[in-house]
Amino acid sequence: MAKELTNKDENYSQWYNDLVVKADLAENSAVRGCMVIKPYGYSIWEKIQALLDKAFKETGHVNAYFPLFIPKSFFSKEANHVEGFAKECAVVTHYRLKNADNGKGVVVDEDAKLEEELIIRPTSETIIWNSYKNWIQSYRDLPLLINQWANIVRWEMRTRLFLRTAEFLWQEGHTAHATKQEAQEEALRILDLYVDFIEKCMAIPVIKGDKTETERFAGAENTYTFEALMQDGKALQTGTSHFLGQNFAKAFDVKFTSKEGKEEFVWATSWGVTTRLIGALIMAHSDNNGLIIPPKIAPIHVVIVPIYKNNDQFNKISKLASEIKTKLESKGMSVKYDDRDTHKPGWKFAEYELKGVPVRLAIGPRDIENNTVEVARRDNLEKNTVPVNGIEDYITDLLEKIQQNMYDKALAFRTKNTFKVDDWNEFKRIMSTTGGFVLAHWDGTNETELKIKEETKATIRCIPFDSSSEKGKCIYSGKPSKQRVLFAIAY
Amino acid sequence: MAKELTNKDENYSQWYNDLVVKADLAENSAVRGCMVIKPYGYSIWEKIQALLDKAFKETGHVNAYFPLFIPKSFFSKEANHVEGFAKECAVVTHYRLKNADNGKGVVVDEDAKLEEELIIRPTSETIIWNSYKNWIQSYRDLPLLINQWANIVRWEMRTRLFLRTAEFLWQEGHTAHATKQEAQEEALRILDLYVDFIEKCMAIPVIKGDKTETERFAGAENTYTFEALMQDGKALQTGTSHFLGQNFAKAFDVKFTSKEGKEEFVWATSWGVTTRLIGALIMAHSDNNGLIIPPKIAPIHVVIVPIYKNNDQFNKISKLASEIKTKLESKGMSVKYDDRDTHKPGWKFAEYELKGVPVRLAIGPRDIENNTVEVARRDNLEKNTVPVNGIEDYITDLLEKIQQNMYDKALAFRTKNTFKVDDWNEFKRIMSTTGGFVLAHWDGTNETELKIKEETKATIRCIPFDSSSEKGKCIYSGKPSKQRVLFAIAY
Repeated sequence: MAKELTNKDENYSQWYNDLVVKADLAENSAVRGCMVIKPYGYSIWEKIQALLDKAFKETGHVNAYFPLFIPKSFFSKEANHVEGFAKECAVVTHYRLKNADNGKGVVVDEDAKLEEELIIRPTSETIIWNSYKNWIQSYRDLPLLINQWANIVRWEMRTRLFLRTAEFLWQEGHTAHATKQEAQEEALRILDLYVDFIEKCMAIPVIKGDKTETERFAGAENTYTFEALMQDGKALQTGTSHFLGQNFAKAFDVKFTSKEGKEEFVWATSWGVTTRLIGALIMAHSDNNGLIIPPKIAPIHVVIVPIYKNNDQFNKISKLASEIKTKLESKGMSVKYDDRDTHKPGWKFAEYELKGVPVRLAIGPRDIENNTVEVARRDNLEKNTVPVNGIEDYITDLLEKIQQNMYDKALAFRTKNTFKVDDWNEFKRIMSTTGGFVLAHWDGTNETELKIKEETKATIRCIPFDSSSEKGKCIYSGKPSKQRVLFAIAY
Repeated sequence: MAKELTNKDENYSQWYNDLVVKADLAENSAVRGCMVIKPYGYSIWEKIQALLDKAFKETGHVNAYFPLFIPKSFFSKEANHVEGFAKECAVVTHYRLKNADNGKGVVVDEDAKLEEELIIRPTSETIIWNSYKNWIQSYRDLPLLINQWANIVRWEMRTRLFLRTAEFLWQEGHTAHATKQEAQEEALRILDLYVDFIEKCMAIPVIKGDKTETERFAGAENTYTFEALMQDGKALQTGTSHFLGQNFAKAFDVKFTSKEGKEEFVWATSWGVTTRLIGALIMAHSDNNGLIIPPKIAPIHVVIVPIYKNNDQFNKISKLASEIKTKLESKGMSVKYDDRDTHKPGWKFAEYELKGVPVRLAIGPRDIENNTVEVARRDNLEKNTVPVNGIEDYITDLLEKIQQNMYDKALAFRTKNTFKVDDWNEFKRIMSTTGGFVLAHWDGTNETELKIKEETKATIRCIPFDSSSEKGKCIYSGKPSKQRVLFAIAY
């Protein structure tokens, strides 16, 4: 009965860790900060990958693969980038081991030292733009719309499964354009693509906006973000899209000849989402019984559990279950019939609630008599007895309702926990108690932003696109402000 | 007209390199031995991935993801494994860079030295079996059928695009079983799955067999292989499936309680294919005009090229092309209409021949009058004028013919270049001239195998499954032999 899950309201952080491990999503590995993504967790990542990959391809992008290693010197080429990225990273210094002199195990062969150290990619702008230099000569070679699915390493000191790990999986788009306008449009097109995915498929409402200079990607001229509110009142940055200007083109000397025959630097974007999305999924929707996965990214849509006392009942139920499975699969659903005799129905109910399967069907002897099934929704735990006849349309419709209900519920939570605040004490009170999104005025300076962070741990998550201009006074300095920005304590 | 491609018969090796680069499959990167897989090359890998992933899942396997890093000490746990794998590898020794004292760039921070070095995975048996230890307690937890799609690093000294690179992409299956028989069956089931894929989808005939002890995977009790013959008479090992016995279970202490309540070590397999398959594809089929890709793994099945002198003609042709494209796509084909006005038809013909697109349709003004198209096959360069009416069935049928013809051609080549040899001088003559597969008797000793390699560079590719037992004398030592084995000079 999911009894080992810590209560969400008592210790949210422990509840999260328990859930990740007990629902078989991931676990810590023998390597500090690196996780093992277990089959069930990975199957959610495969769903995310498939949906995003399709959306990237529909908008003209293609996939490629660039090296894991980046020569150390590459990081020094873009001044801001080196500050932001090349510090906490995995450094390869040698290329050979040898048997230890004492005969026990292996040691690093000091004769096999690399002339230049290699960094495991913390992001691939540098190695990719070093390649683009040879790929781009003329305006005919543009735009270049490339994405990569890859593993990334950032040597984080404090790690948490999915949310912040030393190694994680992601996609990184890197595009090259002839004009500034085209690159800006691309960065925004991808932002919209991401938001569409996270709202419609993951059922998580987000707020789009610009990052402030302090929070911007190292090397970007503008970083667009989309921010989600978790159930504990903290914000989670779920992805970013960067307009890089000509910074990397200049650092790697990537020029093209325009239609007019003029030589110009190329304009760039980059954008990515990571396995952190699985963390967002858990923290936006799940409850004390376990995961709640929205139908559009659920690896299993429907589980069927038989309830029986003898072989005759079991055979009849299995026949009906198999018919229902076929009907549901014909509608594109992924269906599992759990006929294991090693576990009781109650154990199975708890197990699939823990794993967040959207719909559970239970079939017992009385259902066989009446030609019905018991349908249980994971999102609100409601149960209904439903005729087998037409079950495929009923479940199709139900999955849509669940998807919508999950989004509505998350949106209602966010609305309830978003506050317009004009008083500094009130701001501090919220940040030190309930948390939530706070829309407040800010004077636009880095200094104020940093002081607010020091005093409350809250950061500016974004300058929302859709906040209408509204004159006011900075919540901290009292200086004039043109619009409210979004504050929160973030993961 | 692909004029920059080196002639295949003059310099096969240079022809291969030219083709990989000019067909936009891959290129060398700034990092020694690491390649950039370009979008066209990566789209072939995506086809291979999709087909294999489907086959793995249909046989009950699931995907997961394990860490890139392996603690150095893990390699010492399995005695043979450390000899075979942990030597030429990328070693991470530090986790931080810092600004150089002279203000120029960044240097390794000596204060951030890892207590234990981390190895970039050259294969993942050790880190995976270290996890399995916690996943397996009872026979109910078995079998465990897990696959991983990942990047791998082996610090090869002499590298060639796709065939041998320091970093490459692959899949690695790692399964755990309750009995020896079940594990052996799994290793052979996967071998058959691979062979089915490479013969039916990649149109490359292969010979299945056991590896000799010398050529076995480090840590395996048996390595099953499938070997293909390339157009230059050299063999290419295209994948392997290993029966690992209880070696890794013992090294990582992975035991389970059997149905009978007895504690036993788990039985294991591992198996993998890599981006090397793209190298096999190129070398098995391509010609002096470029790639020839079998329809089942071609990213583009059909390209349509318009031939016109004025706008009126272009508009009529485009209308017809669009209709044909829709018809073909309704049959599941991937179709590209290349209506660029920046390149002439002849340039486009050469370009798509270079890229190996199986079928090219050309539409000119006369075709509009006659309601026909010109159909050109890439595999044998034959051209035919065909009615537009029914074109979708004609091309569907043609793609099947091309697929079969490519396999037949490769099989005929292999048959012609496979020799039963009983004379040592003849053996040496073949190996030093034409190459090819040589079936010869061997006395079963490592010494003879190594001496043959020293004198001719030929190795035993496998002990074929289907070679009937036939008594004879070892081609080198003259000692008794029970069956012929397969020799070749290999990539």
